[in-house]
Amino acid sequence: MKAFTKLIEHSKKVANFEHLSSIIGWDQAAVMPSGGAKARSNAMAELDVHIHSLMTQPHLGELFAQAEKETLSASEKSILREMKREWQQANLLPESLVQAQSLAGSKCEHAWRTQRGENDWSGFEKNWAEVVKLSQEEAQIRAEANGTTPYDAMLDIYEPGTTSASLDTLFADVKTWLPSLIDEALEKQQSDNILLPTAYYPAEKQKALGLEVMKLLQFDFEHGRLDESVHPFCGGVPTDVRITTRYDESEFVQSLMGIVHETGHARYEQGLPKDLAGTPAGQARSMGIHESQSLFFEMQIGRNNAFIDHLAHMASKHFSGDEFEKDNLAKIYTRVEKGFIRVDADELTYPAHVILRYEIERDLINGAIKHTDVPELWNEKMKAYLGLSTEGNFKNGCMQDIHWTDGSFGYFPSYTLGAMYAAQFMAAMKQTVDVDAVIRSGDLTPIFDWLSKNIWSKGSLLTTDDLVREATGETLNAKHFQAHLKGRYL
Amino acid sequence: MKAFTKLIEHSKKVANFEHLSSIIGWDQAAVMPSGGAKARSNAMAELDVHIHSLMTQPHLGELFAQAEKETLSASEKSILREMKREWQQANLLPESLVQAQSLAGSKCEHAWRTQRGENDWSGFEKNWAEVVKLSQEEAQIRAEANGTTPYDAMLDIYEPGTTSASLDTLFADVKTWLPSLIDEALEKQQSDNILLPTAYYPAEKQKALGLEVMKLLQFDFEHGRLDESVHPFCGGVPTDVRITTRYDESEFVQSLMGIVHETGHARYEQGLPKDLAGTPAGQARSMGIHESQSLFFEMQIGRNNAFIDHLAHMASKHFSGDEFEKDNLAKIYTRVEKGFIRVDADELTYPAHVILRYEIERDLINGAIKHTDVPELWNEKMKAYLGLSTEGNFKNGCMQDIHWTDGSFGYFPSYTLGAMYAAQFMAAMKQTVDVDAVIRSGDLTPIFDWLSKNIWSKGSLLTTDDLVREATGETLNAKHFQAHLKGRYL
Repeated sequence: MKAFTKLIEHSKKVANFEHLSSIIGWDQAAVMPSGGAKARSNAMAELDVHIHSLMTQPHLGELFAQAEKETLSASEKSILREMKREWQQANLLPESLVQAQSLAGSKCEHAWRTQRGENDWSGFEKNWAEVVKLSQEEAQIRAEANGTTPYDAMLDIYEPGTTSASLDTLFADVKTWLPSLIDEALEKQQSDNILLPTAYYPAEKQKALGLEVMKLLQFDFEHGRLDESVHPFCGGVPTDVRITTRYDESEFVQSLMGIVHETGHARYEQGLPKDLAGTPAGQARSMGIHESQSLFFEMQIGRNNAFIDHLAHMASKHFSGDEFEKDNLAKIYTRVEKGFIRVDADELTYPAHVILRYEIERDLINGAIKHTDVPELWNEKMKAYLGLSTEGNFKNGCMQDIHWTDGSFGYFPSYTLGAMYAAQFMAAMKQTVDVDAVIRSGDLTPIFDWLSKNIWSKGSLLTTDDLVREATGETLNAKHFQAHLKGRYL
Repeated sequence: MKAFTKLIEHSKKVANFEHLSSIIGWDQAAVMPSGGAKARSNAMAELDVHIHSLMTQPHLGELFAQAEKETLSASEKSILREMKREWQQANLLPESLVQAQSLAGSKCEHAWRTQRGENDWSGFEKNWAEVVKLSQEEAQIRAEANGTTPYDAMLDIYEPGTTSASLDTLFADVKTWLPSLIDEALEKQQSDNILLPTAYYPAEKQKALGLEVMKLLQFDFEHGRLDESVHPFCGGVPTDVRITTRYDESEFVQSLMGIVHETGHARYEQGLPKDLAGTPAGQARSMGIHESQSLFFEMQIGRNNAFIDHLAHMASKHFSGDEFEKDNLAKIYTRVEKGFIRVDADELTYPAHVILRYEIERDLINGAIKHTDVPELWNEKMKAYLGLSTEGNFKNGCMQDIHWTDGSFGYFPSYTLGAMYAAQFMAAMKQTVDVDAVIRSGDLTPIFDWLSKNIWSKGSLLTTDDLVREATGETLNAKHFQAHLKGRYL
């Protein structure tokens, strides 16, 4: 048997255990009763250890060396490239570092849960120092293996092939026009009259509406479900994709568009190449491309006027208030507001939050700044990009969310990369598909055919750069994103 | 480290993977969309193989030999006994036999799904011949290891320590009084007026009622859930017990008492000794004892008049028909009817179905009869015990359900053993607990305290015989079962 074939078999074995891990993870978030947590976390830890031991089996190195000498087709070479990448990632970090990170991250996160409310930067900073130090160590090890800067090595986990050099160029472009665009949009919206949700919106009715929207978006219910969880996510496996939402009965805005967003993630998963299932080449390309699909659904389709018309019509079957009137819905879903909190940000101000964080975490991981410099830098950048001061306001500044507390550095850029990819995909799609007419017709098949052909069916066979170039005829740039935002907000 | 301690660690590792298997199994039955089945069954097969490989690791034999020489406490000896039992069971059968059984069972079951409707015994018999032959082989291997008859070796899987000699005695007793008792009960019920369900009973309301009943039965919702599945069951793990039911909106009878039944299974699981979690001694004692708890809830508590009063009261909050009036509910839940189908049988006729099957499968597995003799024997026994002929009526005779199609022989007796244990437990409980008054009060704690102290908290520390003797002061006998049935039906 060829070494390549042995590696494929090994990959499928690992994928089977990862399948279980995904479903169990969904269970934990969506249905597990609280008392089940402790025994469950032991069982999950056992599974994690087993998966890690499979991925670090000593004979794999020899198999990779042999496979690289074998005659392989182009797609086999892609599969091998991705398998090797996963194997290297799994084998890179010493167990002692991973354990130290887990401990320091848990400690920092746990304390943060009360420190944030108390705006207690000096307490937080003491725990966070260790988290940052360990992440720097991790980045250093990765950097030596990859031959890149430390931060670029962290980026590579989420966005293989993306560098801070390319991000700097993209984001420098955005920074030249975003702040003024935000101000112009706010100016334009000043005179808008919006009816905001003030009624009672029963979860049951929100769910019924959400399911209808998912049908319009051709979610495959033979291969997936909609459930509820505190933090909405898309999980499961490509043959059984589990999306979740959270119903706030005092409004409908978040859950409704949240379902559109998660359906984008879900359709990508459902559309991945079935013949590559169980190999890394059958997986989604990167976090940025994943986000490009959820944002394509949420921003490019979901806020299209013809789509809003559908939403208004479907909502009228379940709800009666004027807030669901189509022009009002459109206003609700394009309202711009400068705010401190990233997760509450609208489409237009969101990139400012991401660029700010990217610039800070890049310099932090590269050792160009100290962790104690962060609040000051946050304040400066927040003033420059959104005109808001966070001086002394740590809880709405750098302590605002959980992500940095456990050392997750390198993935924030994916959000804005996703928004840019989505805009670029839409521009390319419009060359062959009359998108507005297609959405208006209520049969969105041509849109999904384009996404399937150009993105979903490719899995990870191509590099991200090649994927985007083949789909759109050009490498990623901010031009389409700018045009999209201008078109919508000015 | 002591060999015993190493075995405990190994047992906990296996238990972690079995935890995952239980939750994934629940997922498959309760929430998985149909399109997820194929990839899921691959993932589950991978997990099964892994668990089997852990349980058959070659070094375990030496560890058991060492541990048996170590100084152990009484409870450690019980744990070791149960660990060794599980290990022996896992190592007994050659892989080739297990695979052949799986293939023959699938083939027979698949064909049975159409053959049953067509009453096609001669088609069925051809596939079933192989299933029976392989089960006989399995029983032979087990018999040689256990030093018992082949059928007793199969019984031992589900009811360790139970023999056909003891079953013959118990069931011979039952056969002396059951047929006439059934006839007398039918005679007595002839003049009853019963209002049967004829309205529409929305699933949502049935569920709300079911949840209230579970609360009355003190189901711990911090450690469990109620969901839906085609075939109701109790699954999950002791810290997170998942029970399911099925709502038929044209009636409420089955689901309502089905929930009571599964809650009995669930409370046993929730009440197992936490300090023994992850070892076989922390598990339920046997299938018969498990069934004794579900039947204690369903038959001993659930059909108690004071409990029926609670049901009627709770039902009146959700439904308005006279069929929910308490005397009528009591009549519905104690109605006796002779029928062909075991799963539809009432409390009184059910043992006849079990004894019939037991006698046939015992002789079949011991090679005393041929599989082609089964329809004739079925007909004879059905006439003797219930006065019904199944001549030529295979589909309502020996082809009526799925269990024999895949070679599951040896567990049918557990159902009636469970009913007998339940009656004997109730008789013992009544010596110290005023059961009727306790149920009437609406706080059933003294009942559950008795069950917890005498059954649940014991796990598998005691043998079944010792468990029953310590709880009731005598070994299992049919006397209490007879008294219970006479008291209720005459």
